[in-house]
Amino acid sequence: MKLKKILNKEQKKKWESLKREVLETNRALPKKGLVIETFGNASGILRFKKISLVVIKPSGVDYDSLKVEDLVTVGIDGKKLDGNLLPSVDTPHHLYIYRNLKQIGGIVHTHSLYATTWACTGRPIPVYNTTHADKFGGEIPCAPYADNRDNHIGKGIIKYRKKEVPAILLEKHGAFIFGTNAKKAIETASELEFVAKIALHYLLLCQVLNRSPKEMSKREATLWRKRHLPGGGYGQT
Amino acid sequence: MKLKKILNKEQKKKWESLKREVLETNRALPKKGLVIETFGNASGILRFKKISLVVIKPSGVDYDSLKVEDLVTVGIDGKKLDGNLLPSVDTPHHLYIYRNLKQIGGIVHTHSLYATTWACTGRPIPVYNTTHADKFGGEIPCAPYADNRDNHIGKGIIKYRKKEVPAILLEKHGAFIFGTNAKKAIETASELEFVAKIALHYLLLCQVLNRSPKEMSKREATLWRKRHLPGGGYGQT
Amino acid sequence: MKLKKILNKEQKKKWESLKREVLETNRALPKKGLVIETFGNASGILRFKKISLVVIKPSGVDYDSLKVEDLVTVGIDGKKLDGNLLPSVDTPHHLYIYRNLKQIGGIVHTHSLYATTWACTGRPIPVYNTTHADKFGGEIPCAPYADNRDNHIGKGIIKYRKKEVPAILLEKHGAFIFGTNAKKAIETASELEFVAKIALHYLLLCQVLNRSPKEMSKREATLWRKRHLPGGGYGQT
Amino acid sequence: MKLKKILNKEQKKKWESLKREVLETNRALPKKGLVIETFGNASGILRFKKISLVVIKPSGVDYDSLKVEDLVTVGIDGKKLDGNLLPSVDTPHHLYIYRNLKQIGGIVHTHSLYATTWACTGRPIPVYNTTHADKFGGEIPCAPYADNRDNHIGKGIIKYRKKEVPAILLEKHGAFIFGTNAKKAIETASELEFVAKIALHYLLLCQVLNRSPKEMSKREATLWRKRHLPGGGYGQT
Repeated sequence: MKLKKILNKEQKKKWESLKREVLETNRALPKKGLVIETFGNASGILRFKKISLVVIKPSGVDYDSLKVEDLVTVGIDGKKLDGNLLPSVDTPHHLYIYRNLKQIGGIVHTHSLYATTWACTGRPIPVYNTTHADKFGGEIPCAPYADNRDNHIGKGIIKYRKKEVPAILLEKHGAFIFGTNAKKAIETASELEFVAKIALHYLLLCQVLNRSPKEMSKREATLWRKRHLPGGGYGQT
Repeated sequence: MKLKKILNKEQKKKWESLKREVLETNRALPKKGLVIETFGNASGILRFKKISLVVIKPSGVDYDSLKVEDLVTVGIDGKKLDGNLLPSVDTPHHLYIYRNLKQIGGIVHTHSLYATTWACTGRPIPVYNTTHADKFGGEIPCAPYADNRDNHIGKGIIKYRKKEVPAILLEKHGAFIFGTNAKKAIETASELEFVAKIALHYLLLCQVLNRSPKEMSKREATLWRKRHLPGGGYGQT
Repeated sequence: MKLKKILNKEQKKKWESLKREVLETNRALPKKGLVIETFGNASGILRFKKISLVVIKPSGVDYDSLKVEDLVTVGIDGKKLDGNLLPSVDTPHHLYIYRNLKQIGGIVHTHSLYATTWACTGRPIPVYNTTHADKFGGEIPCAPYADNRDNHIGKGIIKYRKKEVPAILLEKHGAFIFGTNAKKAIETASELEFVAKIALHYLLLCQVLNRSPKEMSKREATLWRKRHLPGGGYGQT
Repeated sequence: MKLKKILNKEQKKKWESLKREVLETNRALPKKGLVIETFGNASGILRFKKISLVVIKPSGVDYDSLKVEDLVTVGIDGKKLDGNLLPSVDTPHHLYIYRNLKQIGGIVHTHSLYATTWACTGRPIPVYNTTHADKFGGEIPCAPYADNRDNHIGKGIIKYRKKEVPAILLEKHGAFIFGTNAKKAIETASELEFVAKIALHYLLLCQVLNRSPKEMSKREATLWRKRHLPGGGYGQT
C-alpha cells in the first residue's frame, strides 16, 4: 500500500489507533440503539501537515461483522488511500464537513428514531431540560431538505449548523453529529436521540395536561452548558 | 427420505444451504424485535427445473429452540417433502406468493408492533423520510382484511402489492415482506417496522406542533430508492 | 418435611417437575419484559386426589437470584406445606382462582406496562387485530377496582372474567393470566402485553389520522381463535 | 491514606462494603435503563460517631469501566477523604440531603426518560394505580426549577419533598431518589421510571378514549402503601 510508505512511524501508529477508534464507534452504533440494519456511519480524521486521512465505514456492511481491515481510508479530497471495500455513500458529506470545520476530529451520521422523527418536521428541537442544555447549549437546528447529489447535504449542514451546537438535523433524513473525535461524536449522538425522545414525550404530556410547553431561557441553558465544556468542572479534566 | 434421492449432489448442497439460511432468519426474528412468542415465520425457495423446494418454519415452535431438522420442506403445491413437524399455518400464503412472484427467493411474515398498528387502520404508510424512500421507494400498501381460509390472504397480497415495493401490510393482521432471499427479506422486515414506528411518531409530533404532515414527492423518493437498487451505488456491489 | 412423607414416588416427581416449571416461569418474567423489580409472580398447581399442591414465588425476592428451594408450596386452603420463605402476598388470589377454575393449572400475575395502562382506565381491550383474536378470541375484560383485603380480588376475577378468555385486567392494578400450566400462562401474559400495546398505539394513530377505531366482528374473531385452540390446526398437536 | 488510619477495623470493613454497594448500584444504572452515557449517579453514607463517610461516583466516568478504586469518599462537609478522581458535580446535592435527612443511607440521581418528561412540566405525578401506591404512597412531588449553583438544588429538594415519599422530581432536570441504602434507592428509581411511564401512557389513553383521568383516593393509596412498609406483610421481613 502506497500510504504505508508515505507515513512515518509515529503517523502510522496514529492511523492504526484512529482505525481502531472508528471501528469501535461504528460497532457501538447498534449497541447504543442508534441504527438498525446498516443505517448509519462514523468516521474520524487525522490532519497531518502534508496529508489528511479520513477513516470511514464501508458502504452497506453489517456492524457486527465489521473488521478493522474493512475500513476505508480516503484523503480530504475523497481519493481512496487504503482499503479494499467501497466507502460509505455518505463519505462526500463527511469530507465536506471536515474541510469546513477544522476543529472537528470525528463525525457520526444516524437515522436514529426520535432524531429522525423531529427531522421529518423540519423543525429544531427546543431546549426543554438540563440534559439538552448540558450537551447542546441551545436548540438543535434542522437544515432544510437536501437531496443526495453533489455537496447539497454538506453545504446545508455548514450553512444551518449553529456554531456552538455539536449536532444538526437534516429535514426528512436524519442527523449529523460532530466531535473532537469519533468516540465523543457517538456519545453526543446518543444524547441527541435521548433529548429528541424526551422533547416529543414532553410535548405529548403538555397536550394531555393542557399546558403550554416552556423552553429554558438562553441564559439558563448557557449556565448548564458551561459546566460541561472543557474546564467547566464536569468530568475529570 | 425420498427427496434425498431426487436431488443431485449440487442440489442437495443448495438445499442444505437454504435450510441454514431459513433457520438463521427465523431465529433472528425475536432478536430483531419483530416477533413475540411464535408470531412470525420466514421461508425460502429453491426453484430447480423439475422441482421447487420451499423451506419454512414449523408451526408454533419457539425460535430459540428451533433446529435445522425441525424445518419443513414442501413443494410449490404444498405437498410435504421433508421434515417430521407440521409446517406453519401460513404456508399456503407463502406458496401462493412464490407461485405468483417468480423473482422472489425469500418471504418473512410478522405481526411486528408498529407495522401491525398501521395494518389495523387499513391505510398505507406514506413516504415521510429518506429511510422509507431508500428501502421502499413509495408508500407501503395495505391489502384489505382477509380471513385465513383458502387463498384469501395470498390473493389479497398479489392484488394489492405495488410492483416495486418489497412489503405489504394486511388489514387488521400484520405484514408480508419479500426478498431475493430470506436474509434480505428479514432486513426489509426490520426496516418496515422502523419506518412504521417513525411514521406514527411523526404524525403524533405534527399534531402537538400543529403542523400538517408532509409526504416526500414521488420524484424525490425515486431518487433515493435508485441508489439502493442493485448497481445504484449503495453497498459493495 | 411432612409433605415428603405424604406423597408417593410418582407424586414427588411431579412436584419436583412443577417446582422447576414455576421457577423457570418466574425467572422468565423480567426476561420477557413483563415485570420490573419484584412486581409479578407465577404459580402452578398439582391436583392430587387427597391433596392439592400450589407452588408459588416467595414474596419480594428478586427473579434473578430465585432458586428452586426458595419456592413455597401451599395447600389449596393456603396452609404452608413446604419452603422456608413467606409466599407472595398475592397467594390468596391465586388460591381463590384455583378453587373456582378447576381446569386451570398455572397463573401469572403482572403489572406489565401496557396491560396496566389499560387497567387504569377500567375498560376492556377490544379486539382490533388477528393477534388478539388468535390468543383471546374476544375483548379482554377488566374487573372493577378491588382493594387487597380478604378475597376481594379473587372474587372480582371470577365474577368478571369471560369464560373463553384466558386473561383479565384489574382496574388500577394489573392483570391475571390463566393457563393449563404456568408456561402457557406466561406466554399468554406476553401476548396480553403485546395486544395492549398495539391497541393503545392503534387508538393514537386513529386519532392523528382522524379515523374511527374499528373492532373486529365476533364472527371473525372466533374464526381466528378456533385455529389456535387444541386441535384447531395451529402448532404441533 | 489518612482515612485508613482514622477508621478502626470494623469501620474499615463497613466502608469497604459500602464501596462495593455503591459500585454495584452505579453499574446497575444503565442496566436498569435509568441512564444513558454518564447522566446519573448513586451514593451511600456511613454515619459513624466521629465521622461520616459519603461514597459517590466520580464525575463523567463510564459505568461499565467503573472500578471500586475509582469511587470517591468525601466527608459530610464535602472534603475529599479518599480517591484519586474528582467526585460527581452533583456531590453537593447529595451531601445537602444527607445532612438534612438523617434516616437516609443511599441516594440515586437520574435523568431517566419518563421521570424527566414529567419533570419538564413541573407537575407532580398523581397516583393512578397500585404500583404507584405500593411504592410511593402518594403523588410524587416536583421541586420548582433551580440552577446548579450553591445549594439551590438541595434546598429545593428538602423544601418540596413529601415526608413519606422516597422520590422527588426537579423541574426541567430529573429526579432524586432516597433509600435506607443505595440498593434500595435504585429499586425505587426503577419504580419511579415505571410509574412515570404508565402515568403518561394512561393520560394518552384517556385522551383517545375521551375519558377523564381518575386518581386513586388517599385512603386507598395508603392501604396499599402500608403493606409495603417494613412489617406491613410484603417481602421476607
